[in-house]
Amino acid sequence: MKLKVKLLGLEAGGKPIVVLNREDAEELGVRGLSRVVLKTDKKYLTGIVNVTDKIVKKGKVGVSEEVRKILNLKNNFEVEVEVAKFPSSLQHIKNKIKGKKLSYEEIFEIVKDAVDGNLSEGEIASFVVALETKGLDLDEAASLSLAMVETGKKLELNKKIIVDKHSIGGIAGDKTTLIVVPIIAAAGLAIPKTSSRAITGAAGSADRAEVLMPVSLSIEEMKKVVEKTNGCIVWGGALHLAPADDIFIQAEYPLTIDPLLLPSIMAKKKAVGANFLVIDIPTGRGAKMKTIGDANLLAKDFIELGARLGIKTQCAITDGEQPVGYAIGPALEAREALEVLMGKNVHDLVDKAAHLAGILFEMIGKKNGYELALKILKSRKAEEKMREIIATQGGNEKIKPEEIEVGDKKLDIIAEKSGIVLWINNAGINEVARAAGSPKDKGAGILLYKKLNDKVLKGEKILTIYAEKERKLERAEKLLEEAKIVGIGEKREMLIQHVKEIPLHKKTFILER
Amino acid sequence: MKLKVKLLGLEAGGKPIVVLNREDAEELGVRGLSRVVLKTDKKYLTGIVNVTDKIVKKGKVGVSEEVRKILNLKNNFEVEVEVAKFPSSLQHIKNKIKGKKLSYEEIFEIVKDAVDGNLSEGEIASFVVALETKGLDLDEAASLSLAMVETGKKLELNKKIIVDKHSIGGIAGDKTTLIVVPIIAAAGLAIPKTSSRAITGAAGSADRAEVLMPVSLSIEEMKKVVEKTNGCIVWGGALHLAPADDIFIQAEYPLTIDPLLLPSIMAKKKAVGANFLVIDIPTGRGAKMKTIGDANLLAKDFIELGARLGIKTQCAITDGEQPVGYAIGPALEAREALEVLMGKNVHDLVDKAAHLAGILFEMIGKKNGYELALKILKSRKAEEKMREIIATQGGNEKIKPEEIEVGDKKLDIIAEKSGIVLWINNAGINEVARAAGSPKDKGAGILLYKKLNDKVLKGEKILTIYAEKERKLERAEKLLEEAKIVGIGEKREMLIQHVKEIPLHKKTFILER
Repeated sequence: MKLKVKLLGLEAGGKPIVVLNREDAEELGVRGLSRVVLKTDKKYLTGIVNVTDKIVKKGKVGVSEEVRKILNLKNNFEVEVEVAKFPSSLQHIKNKIKGKKLSYEEIFEIVKDAVDGNLSEGEIASFVVALETKGLDLDEAASLSLAMVETGKKLELNKKIIVDKHSIGGIAGDKTTLIVVPIIAAAGLAIPKTSSRAITGAAGSADRAEVLMPVSLSIEEMKKVVEKTNGCIVWGGALHLAPADDIFIQAEYPLTIDPLLLPSIMAKKKAVGANFLVIDIPTGRGAKMKTIGDANLLAKDFIELGARLGIKTQCAITDGEQPVGYAIGPALEAREALEVLMGKNVHDLVDKAAHLAGILFEMIGKKNGYELALKILKSRKAEEKMREIIATQGGNEKIKPEEIEVGDKKLDIIAEKSGIVLWINNAGINEVARAAGSPKDKGAGILLYKKLNDKVLKGEKILTIYAEKERKLERAEKLLEEAKIVGIGEKREMLIQHVKEIPLHKKTFILER
Repeated sequence: MKLKVKLLGLEAGGKPIVVLNREDAEELGVRGLSRVVLKTDKKYLTGIVNVTDKIVKKGKVGVSEEVRKILNLKNNFEVEVEVAKFPSSLQHIKNKIKGKKLSYEEIFEIVKDAVDGNLSEGEIASFVVALETKGLDLDEAASLSLAMVETGKKLELNKKIIVDKHSIGGIAGDKTTLIVVPIIAAAGLAIPKTSSRAITGAAGSADRAEVLMPVSLSIEEMKKVVEKTNGCIVWGGALHLAPADDIFIQAEYPLTIDPLLLPSIMAKKKAVGANFLVIDIPTGRGAKMKTIGDANLLAKDFIELGARLGIKTQCAITDGEQPVGYAIGPALEAREALEVLMGKNVHDLVDKAAHLAGILFEMIGKKNGYELALKILKSRKAEEKMREIIATQGGNEKIKPEEIEVGDKKLDIIAEKSGIVLWINNAGINEVARAAGSPKDKGAGILLYKKLNDKVLKGEKILTIYAEKERKLERAEKLLEEAKIVGIGEKREMLIQHVKEIPLHKKTFILER
């Protein structure tokens, strides 16, 4: 059926929506949520049908922005509209539900159809849940990584050695990337680092770096930065490195399941051409990995999958019992990172960054990696490199830490008794910082004055909450009253919690990609 | 945030779509596919966000027809729009993915949230796939049935004995319901029969009955018909007996999985108050159940689930090797059923109907059920009862078989050789009838002249295809050339198929509800 385009100017969260007049829909034999193929002379796309009596007249077809962009449509363009066939990838999904192992070709078809919009939200969720319940082996994980790489863009650097670093996330204030990247790049190694924005946390590395420089670069721009400086810190979301991941994560997120975690992390590393990789696995009660045993199992999977993909991979199991450094929130963290690059000794942050950089140095054959990393940091060569990266990505290379603006609404939290810091609630820190405005309000966040085992006197400041808006500061204060985030006591207390009634289930986090 | 309603007049296949201007969406902190709660003074609803720069201005909120109906909205009504919390039923779905057995309360929350629109398409699919892969036990199946009943409408008849009949479907031409209902009702037993329309077949019982009378009744209208006549044949889709089923089936259908099959069938029986039930399980190479062993396993599940729900259930494993009777397609089948009620002996149809009615008679304590059913049929009391039901549902009670209009475009298929009928391809019959226009064109279909083991002479008519439109008749003819639907040979041939290359996967059917 030939129909004329009506642009609706509607964004449907990535979904290709096609609105048909009821009469045309009945003639085609489709109804709401059916799929149709739209064809122009050059391209075609599978869209999801909505039916109307009103906003689209007979003979017209309304299209969402997603459809307009892909088919490059204008008002009154003529398109051919046909009933879509069930994609054959559905059969592969069904086979996975039955427990069958999928081949690379089958997985590629599923990933391709997901990216091309040929699978519905429900069908994609079905695939994800089938992977979660039936499991996937290393062959399938490698196939998924490769299929994600093949259906996305790639960074092609003319370098023999390309290193990368990734953290599974979950620790408040973890600005290690902002220290590791310039150390590695200053040593002359290419590190094309892509980072994510915060999903449930107070800041992602992309949010932190964005305080210092633009991070929404295209792949061509990213390539130029790395070719010039050896490093970069770029938001991965704008690069389309593994667009399938954004689609699968929408199904995983509400259920906090993540069978595609490893394949999608590794796909993104493969897509930038990395051949040496260190994975940071923070471990502890407040971290995503609760025990060293669990962290080791995860490490094993990363290393084996890396081997299949030609990426030499090692893992660092790190202390995740408390935030890294003292600052939480994009601007506060950017400031702390810059201070460390300029010589300030924030012990845990410096130690962690030097270990991760050091592992990468030793993986490529250098000796005494940890000491080498510390030396580069102390020599201020890492700072110099960071300012070069900032300049090349379009930021102000001369920026001083005190010039980084933080929220002017503040609230100090005072110790009600003396003692030592027994615990710091990572998730609670994130929640309070988010209530204060992080990561959207870059100046919002928390500055800690005390860390684990520090002595505290009654009346001393424990932390300050920063916000850009009074209303959000009040919201953070209210939340702080409900959720204890720093525990102070004279000595370790044996009773952790007294359970009086059936506890409410709380949503847990999803590992960062 | 308070926003003013803009009615979009858009039907989104049952999905509650809410369109926000980009500025309002950013202020709320939501994006495409996020969920928001819309509140009026009286009601609230969870909607799925689409974002626009164009069709909805700042300060307004566009709503789909689904939202308008539920909240009873008009243009410029003020509604409160808030970010929706994750429903706690998501935690139960996650637990099922992990393999946990769910309680009635947990299942009820999931079903309620699905019906209320609080779960996305992907989340519902996740639940369905978790049930498919992790399985559900009888407790969970019973919980699902009861939750579906509780979240839908119920038929409340003032009768001690209410009987019902259900077929898992899949056999072309199976108009048994149109014979069983009047036999049972004529015997003075209440049989409030709901039927479905064809999904993949050429006709559902609702399509067949609609040729004789209106079938889209409300539950109040249905009640009046049964109170007056003891029986009815009503389309289940308009009754909202178990609305959750329509939602779950959207996730099951593309994957041809059906973990909710038994619970949803039984929910609908429970919702009409049935306490005696016979389930027809057609079995054979062309049927959904391929072996008598499989059919027995399914029968066991139906009987056990029935016991949990207080529905005494028995099953009839029937011959599903070929179509029932000679007519396929709504009008042709309605005509054949009426002829049988008026005394024509179509052996397999009469035999099957008498067995099913007879089982119900014996379940409630009558003796010689099969003979009793035949007696009622032969006495024309079933015809009389059917005409009473037709009149009460608003049809023409005086209709004669020859007055039922069938398509005037015809094509005879002639035997190319003599022999006997070795096989009839049920699925092929359905496909050709659908190509000819069934079930939408009620007069389209197939009339068979030969059944299994009948002798055929070269040049004799094997069947006639009926259509209402020339174009569709041609389409059916073309399909018939590709797919052999009747096999004629001198004797059984040992070679069934010669496989030369990897066969294409074909979509299989889903059991009828």
